[in-house]
Amino acid sequence: MPASIRVPQQERSRATKARLLEATVECLVEHGWAGTTTTVVAARAGVSRGAQLHHYPTKAALVTAAVTHLTERRAEELRTEAEALPPGPQRLDRVIDLLATSFTGPLFVAALELWVAARTDRELREALLPLEARVGREMHRLTVALLDVDERRPGVREAVQATLDLLRGLGVANLLNDDSTRRAALLTTWKRQLSTLLAP
Amino acid sequence: MPASIRVPQQERSRATKARLLEATVECLVEHGWAGTTTTVVAARAGVSRGAQLHHYPTKAALVTAAVTHLTERRAEELRTEAEALPPGPQRLDRVIDLLATSFTGPLFVAALELWVAARTDRELREALLPLEARVGREMHRLTVALLDVDERRPGVREAVQATLDLLRGLGVANLLNDDSTRRAALLTTWKRQLSTLLAP
Repeated sequence: MPASIRVPQQERSRATKARLLEATVECLVEHGWAGTTTTVVAARAGVSRGAQLHHYPTKAALVTAAVTHLTERRAEELRTEAEALPPGPQRLDRVIDLLATSFTGPLFVAALELWVAARTDRELREALLPLEARVGREMHRLTVALLDVDERRPGVREAVQATLDLLRGLGVANLLNDDSTRRAALLTTWKRQLSTLLAP
Repeated sequence: MPASIRVPQQERSRATKARLLEATVECLVEHGWAGTTTTVVAARAGVSRGAQLHHYPTKAALVTAAVTHLTERRAEELRTEAEALPPGPQRLDRVIDLLATSFTGPLFVAALELWVAARTDRELREALLPLEARVGREMHRLTVALLDVDERRPGVREAVQATLDLLRGLGVANLLNDDSTRRAALLTTWKRQLSTLLAP
């Protein structure tokens, strides 16, 4: 019965990979790019060096896979959270709040560590460039879906882009300080503007 | 004649410091935070280690002084460039272009290296926090002055804040890729919105 043997192995393998990827993001958040070594990640995940190297042979492969995996998971969570939102005029406000939480959370911080490090690290840069383009496109598509707007209408695409760039800027402003009071006030104004820009 | 001796010494000292601070920002842009060592900076500036340690005893002191010095110089340049702008309806567009150039230039990149490193480096963080607050306030005040708007009117303060947060987000989007085409299109839309928001 090779099938019944293969399945548990695949599951173990998947669980090992998931533990490694989560430990990687935790390490990036706690110690930054320079302090994130493959040894520290393996120890944190409770995975042998051999198993780690089997799945992710380099640090660049490991961190890129980690950000990809957690971005996909976060996108799923956002979709689920958005489905639970009541329809009506407050939906836009709540969607912006959900997105703002993402742009100030651990995944944003981990990704920013990689983006900044990749500027001066050729191997990481080459691993990240295709991911950057994909994450950008998917984040845009997800936001259009969450806001439930039609991108073919003039101005909608630009308004969604500006929202994401603004949220990225707010994420950076929150790095060293709790910027939540200023951010909430600014987003209150932005939500009003956005709802005008998106109105049919 | 002690005065005539003191003056050239002060000038030499000022020139040494300026060379060190410029070499620091160049190093941050080229090699990132981890690759910026005080030894590399001293060699690049052509300054002895002794003279460097006399002026800036730690790496945190050196990089903080460098970003402070160059931010002040960049603010001066922006004021001069803005004074040369013709008055009229296009002034706002040109001011936004000037600011966008700053947020995608070497000083922004160097500052971002420090901001991200400071998240996980206590000494750097303590040196940067007062600077972050000051730079934030001065950037806001400078933008209000360049746009020649009255902050006491409702909505003006929030519009200026959103502009700076948006530009910060666009600066990050430009880190690994030339994002200038998308940025120009997005800013064209933003300039129209901003001119409505700022209109008396």
